[in-house]
Amino acid sequence: MTRLSHLDQKGQAHMVDVGEKDITSRQAVAESTIEMKSETLDLILSNALPKGDVIATARIAGIMAAKKTSDLIPMCHPLPITSAKVKIEKTSDTSLRVEATVKVTGKTGVEMEALTAATVAALTLYDMAKSADKDMIITSTRLLFKSGGKSGTYTANSP
Amino acid sequence: MTRLSHLDQKGQAHMVDVGEKDITSRQAVAESTIEMKSETLDLILSNALPKGDVIATARIAGIMAAKKTSDLIPMCHPLPITSAKVKIEKTSDTSLRVEATVKVTGKTGVEMEALTAATVAALTLYDMAKSADKDMIITSTRLLFKSGGKSGTYTANSP
Amino acid sequence: MTRLSHLDQKGQAHMVDVGEKDITSRQAVAESTIEMKSETLDLILSNALPKGDVIATARIAGIMAAKKTSDLIPMCHPLPITSAKVKIEKTSDTSLRVEATVKVTGKTGVEMEALTAATVAALTLYDMAKSADKDMIITSTRLLFKSGGKSGTYTANSP
Amino acid sequence: MTRLSHLDQKGQAHMVDVGEKDITSRQAVAESTIEMKSETLDLILSNALPKGDVIATARIAGIMAAKKTSDLIPMCHPLPITSAKVKIEKTSDTSLRVEATVKVTGKTGVEMEALTAATVAALTLYDMAKSADKDMIITSTRLLFKSGGKSGTYTANSP
Amino acid sequence: MTRLSHLDQKGQAHMVDVGEKDITSRQAVAESTIEMKSETLDLILSNALPKGDVIATARIAGIMAAKKTSDLIPMCHPLPITSAKVKIEKTSDTSLRVEATVKVTGKTGVEMEALTAATVAALTLYDMAKSADKDMIITSTRLLFKSGGKSGTYTANSP
Amino acid sequence: MTRLSHLDQKGQAHMVDVGEKDITSRQAVAESTIEMKSETLDLILSNALPKGDVIATARIAGIMAAKKTSDLIPMCHPLPITSAKVKIEKTSDTSLRVEATVKVTGKTGVEMEALTAATVAALTLYDMAKSADKDMIITSTRLLFKSGGKSGTYTANSP
Repeated sequence: MTRLSHLDQKGQAHMVDVGEKDITSRQAVAESTIEMKSETLDLILSNALPKGDVIATARIAGIMAAKKTSDLIPMCHPLPITSAKVKIEKTSDTSLRVEATVKVTGKTGVEMEALTAATVAALTLYDMAKSADKDMIITSTRLLFKSGGKSGTYTANSP
Repeated sequence: MTRLSHLDQKGQAHMVDVGEKDITSRQAVAESTIEMKSETLDLILSNALPKGDVIATARIAGIMAAKKTSDLIPMCHPLPITSAKVKIEKTSDTSLRVEATVKVTGKTGVEMEALTAATVAALTLYDMAKSADKDMIITSTRLLFKSGGKSGTYTANSP
Repeated sequence: MTRLSHLDQKGQAHMVDVGEKDITSRQAVAESTIEMKSETLDLILSNALPKGDVIATARIAGIMAAKKTSDLIPMCHPLPITSAKVKIEKTSDTSLRVEATVKVTGKTGVEMEALTAATVAALTLYDMAKSADKDMIITSTRLLFKSGGKSGTYTANSP
Repeated sequence: MTRLSHLDQKGQAHMVDVGEKDITSRQAVAESTIEMKSETLDLILSNALPKGDVIATARIAGIMAAKKTSDLIPMCHPLPITSAKVKIEKTSDTSLRVEATVKVTGKTGVEMEALTAATVAALTLYDMAKSADKDMIITSTRLLFKSGGKSGTYTANSP
Repeated sequence: MTRLSHLDQKGQAHMVDVGEKDITSRQAVAESTIEMKSETLDLILSNALPKGDVIATARIAGIMAAKKTSDLIPMCHPLPITSAKVKIEKTSDTSLRVEATVKVTGKTGVEMEALTAATVAALTLYDMAKSADKDMIITSTRLLFKSGGKSGTYTANSP
Repeated sequence: MTRLSHLDQKGQAHMVDVGEKDITSRQAVAESTIEMKSETLDLILSNALPKGDVIATARIAGIMAAKKTSDLIPMCHPLPITSAKVKIEKTSDTSLRVEATVKVTGKTGVEMEALTAATVAALTLYDMAKSADKDMIITSTRLLFKSGGKSGTYTANSP
């Protein structure tokens, strides 16, 4: 079979080979903060919005999204995660902060799973409250911590 | 059948009924901005990262994510979207901005589809470049514009 | 092209053609009941189980499952449902009853969507409480009501 | 970063951490029984229903559903199952019984996978036959057996 | 907000806007042929392979895949298909031919749905029989016919 | 519980038990070739088609499809693949060839994952270019190579 030309192979996207990496315990923590009017936050905390229970729905959406990460992020490896937690807390009169923690015993890390969980929880907060406030902004989404694997532990700087 | 007790029905989450809403042309635009080291942005723009073509992968991930919105956001209605576009542009030496535009002819709007597309594109930028820079932050994700439906047109304030 | 043989075409499964059916408002209601020890029901209602909030999780799982019906049931048509509600109530000291209501404006009904929502909510109740009680039984899952479409309204007999 | 308030963390749903559990061979068996008119059962067994082959479709739907369990049940861990079987048998002139067996080598059990497979097979039986009989009832869905893991073997009581 | 640079926008992939297209009845037919040893075809037709019923499984896989098309093909629009049929026939002692027919009432066609159904059915034939024969080749997959929409009717040339 | 009849159990489809198989490094390579008019190939290579970047979109679609294999092919086991690559090359003035390579460390092989990746990439090539040319034919899809597992290494004959 003649191969006349290789199209654009340098730089093409691929799922990198992690077959030779060690299986270790890995963990990642990510956060996402959403800013809103104080009236909107009151409506959320008093469970007075037409779509119903904002906080529980966002938390569950985040956990379920962690399991969909490799379906969403094209070059992510599918991973059998062993734990996922999402907590949501009020950090000011106008902000909620989502923190997602994901663990796996595997050949590659769960940074994207934690970031995806935090982000989808924040998007769900937006969805559940948007009839009251379309000006909400997800102001900061970032990795806070990871451990395990060859590159070792990472801790984000304080903001 | 005796019904002894109704558990927590006030405030419970549900997918609101849009059956009586009009079918109209609807559009939404959302953005997500990611900040990084200038060296990281150079690696992205010169296509020099190990996972390959960052920009094209993020754009396609965003478009595919728009179609998964109702699978991710628990109370979102499934919608047969008629168009999805994601553009990614350099807005400074240390930032990329994703803008997602989604359209539908339907009974409810596509704000969440646009926000999901922008967010997943930004998360994919993170994933493709994270071997070089774990300090990247998605600094702002918000709805810019929507039109169609009973609540009419919305335009975000300038930042 | 010669066609030597038709394999087993009579009786083969297919997604029946609903293209000529009218678009009407359709609704379906289904229920699923789960029996358990009274101690288990107490643990659920006092939110004392290790997996956390049983009722809210089951309700959200049921709503999300309604949207996955055509992905689970092979010959079901994909439908853009316009509403989904799941309520869960205590019907005795040893039983919870899930009732799911789904609506669509479309060419075919949402009986399977309502049944799938009720069933997945009941399975989620089992999952959340199974560390305390593996003997739980989902004792009855059935269609209660449907309206819309050529076959008109159906109402189940009392049990 | 100040944390002003922790919202509702006690009792919130999460995917429990199974990272420290042993990897063992695990198996689960579940059943689901569906009652119908004897005429309906005759139509199923003679393959005379408009949607086609009821039994094969239900069996395959059950097996495929076992693989979707962690996507349906919010707090279930994703598991690389190693085997799934669904059998369907006539248990009286008016009833079919689905039995699903699922195996895995992993850190947590496959009870929910077996229950989901049995249930989705039963729902598919309903879907394939509902044009003839909407009064069918899924009368009993339960775990029959599990083995493997710290809690050991479980066998259901006879009905 | 300054926009310093537009990255590669000419030629970037997007889901084209079909919002202004007419809603019409549309149909597409596609085929996929798989060649194998005559012994393998005998094993398939006598249902003697270890994975079980090859033909029924392939047919159902094809129908279910039609519903997943927009999840697989990045720039495809999600479409509420109204009908899907897959037939499989012996066309020689060494070949099976899959033919998939899909219909929709919508703004864009179902060519990709028909091609995806035919292809996944053929891949399933491969999977079910590969323990006996890894040399099977899917020799021809193509669109046979489409109707509806602005571009009208298309009929493939005879091979 | 009396079991009156076993329906069609001989020959019924099931996911075969791989629990006792060894965990080994496994790899599979598959190809799919698509034939088209030379004018169509020129449009693809000059990135002049209305849907945008054909090659990058097809490559990414193929990689993402590898991860969906067990969701598409009913009796495939879910596998945590460790690597996926798709390359697309011009093999004549009228043909593109897709080659997909997938790896896993697991109890069963990735032949279907490689075949699914190659096929979905080829279908995406069709989708991206079909506005210019509906006569394209996917002329050959086959397994080229596999290694690992009890059956050892397989290499296809030259065409």
